[in-house]
Amino acid sequence: MAAALEDTPVTYEELADLERQFDDVETEIIRKQFELSRPLYQKRHKIVSQIPNFWPLVIEQAPPEIDEYIQPSDSAVLLNSLSSLDVSRFELEDAGSGEPRSFSVRLEFAENDYFEDKVIEKKFWHRKGPRNWSGLVSEPVEIKWKKGKDLTGGLLSLARKAWEEENAWAKDNPGKKQPKGLTETQEALRTSLENTGIGGISFFAWFGYIGSNISEEESKKEVERRIKARGENLVDGVEKADDSKGEDKGDDGGEDEEEEDDLEIFPDGEDLAICIAEDLWPSAVKYFTHAQEQDALSDDEFEESDEEMTESPTQAGAAERPSKKQRQD
Amino acid sequence: MAAALEDTPVTYEELADLERQFDDVETEIIRKQFELSRPLYQKRHKIVSQIPNFWPLVIEQAPPEIDEYIQPSDSAVLLNSLSSLDVSRFELEDAGSGEPRSFSVRLEFAENDYFEDKVIEKKFWHRKGPRNWSGLVSEPVEIKWKKGKDLTGGLLSLARKAWEEENAWAKDNPGKKQPKGLTETQEALRTSLENTGIGGISFFAWFGYIGSNISEEESKKEVERRIKARGENLVDGVEKADDSKGEDKGDDGGEDEEEEDDLEIFPDGEDLAICIAEDLWPSAVKYFTHAQEQDALSDDEFEESDEEMTESPTQAGAAERPSKKQRQD
Repeated sequence: MAAALEDTPVTYEELADLERQFDDVETEIIRKQFELSRPLYQKRHKIVSQIPNFWPLVIEQAPPEIDEYIQPSDSAVLLNSLSSLDVSRFELEDAGSGEPRSFSVRLEFAENDYFEDKVIEKKFWHRKGPRNWSGLVSEPVEIKWKKGKDLTGGLLSLARKAWEEENAWAKDNPGKKQPKGLTETQEALRTSLENTGIGGISFFAWFGYIGSNISEEESKKEVERRIKARGENLVDGVEKADDSKGEDKGDDGGEDEEEEDDLEIFPDGEDLAICIAEDLWPSAVKYFTHAQEQDALSDDEFEESDEEMTESPTQAGAAERPSKKQRQD
Repeated sequence: MAAALEDTPVTYEELADLERQFDDVETEIIRKQFELSRPLYQKRHKIVSQIPNFWPLVIEQAPPEIDEYIQPSDSAVLLNSLSSLDVSRFELEDAGSGEPRSFSVRLEFAENDYFEDKVIEKKFWHRKGPRNWSGLVSEPVEIKWKKGKDLTGGLLSLARKAWEEENAWAKDNPGKKQPKGLTETQEALRTSLENTGIGGISFFAWFGYIGSNISEEESKKEVERRIKARGENLVDGVEKADDSKGEDKGDDGGEDEEEEDDLEIFPDGEDLAICIAEDLWPSAVKYFTHAQEQDALSDDEFEESDEEMTESPTQAGAAERPSKKQRQD
């Protein structure tokens, strides 16, 4: 079929401009979503904070996409001492501007045997990068483990240390490329990662997730570059794949990036964050209600199967747990 | 873990009420989404209607979830004569009330060898039914096929006839249950369906999709019943699974329904409708741009592979087609 724009008054610029307007509307809709639901989340927070085991019961019923990352030892901490979980869209200001896809997950804990922290909070920034990439980036968050109780086996603090050293170097050497090869801390981190069995990494290693190394400034530049590039590309009649453009600008592509990827202590960190923010958090009351049903069932009829549920609490009720929210439901 | 509400001032009614408020906000957000994007869709309509092959080029690049239903003979009609595709949320009034999940798909065609219709429109109503069901229901839409050109081999008009007969019977026998067994038309429809090879059903049979037999009134009653039942159930301390409730009310459950399901000529009708309304329609300009890229590639470099693309146009560019929109992108 022949290219269709040749004999029409429509230009590629016009179409590209239209698409940009659609993107803006989509961002605006996501903002609206949080604006409209914020008062309800505040109300929910007040109500559920009066229910002592609310969040542990929600965690018990967590969907498989979250549950798979919770090891038995993590489960012990979460079920015994998680007192609150909150997701906020911290870049949304009252006026309603700001990136609505950035969010923070804040966990509160009661006194426990594992760490000193009462609050552990992890922020995720939605950024755009070269090669048409967009996604969530974060910073490793330290946890003050009690002696001999580090569930990540030292991984988390190594990840934090390596990240701090890298940042300090970048500050002292503005505009320069990080030297090739690994630092001492990075080597230690790599060795430590290699010695960790598959599937054996703690849920708490998630607090070490970094993601792509894209700063706020780089992300803003990338947005401007895309708007400009899009216009230019479309003048040729064909929108070139963005792959070819990345190398002109940001120097963080290529081999170095792969090396750094190897040092990510929780590679699925973004998926887990999204699942917490877009499923566990909005559907918490449904998961809680399911936990109650499980409980009532085991009290009434399956007295003996109760023990089983205690042994492997996060596995219970897989068949009956509420499904993810879908637009069309 | 013990049931958690016993020693708290929180009641199950309070939680159920909170969930209802969340549901209302979600519906409101979907309304807002269409309200905000409607002017842009109107603008897009004006622009793309100046591009002669716009919709055929979009169909060429349709995602696999749509493409799998387009047979080679369907493809010939769609690529040669589809002049417009429109999705509207017809239950949304200007004031912004109404069910935003109901929609209509309207196809316009140029003069062609297959049928007389210039416009074929199919409406989908979002309804709620017994057993916690919610989804899209529709009515079979007739197509005026030219002689010997019925791409559905008579299925579509049989489905329409059976549906009309059923409706006429229900009108003459208000409140009564349809008699057991199949009518003559239903028998003919079943035979015709049995003789159709798997995977051989035309895209145009989609216009015969009916879905669950839930009227507007039944759906409204079901919404009221759920609100009431939810409150009652929760007073016991356990929200009973809704399965047990269906039988008390609507009499359209059970064997009859299964028999009718067998007569659905396009069982995946709802999935296809949603994919058209939530992917093909909003991303049409992206699919069009990809079609242009394919075209430019084949013109410049792969002159000889051009023929291949013409033979199987809807298969082209599978690897490079834009992915579905996701919230976090």
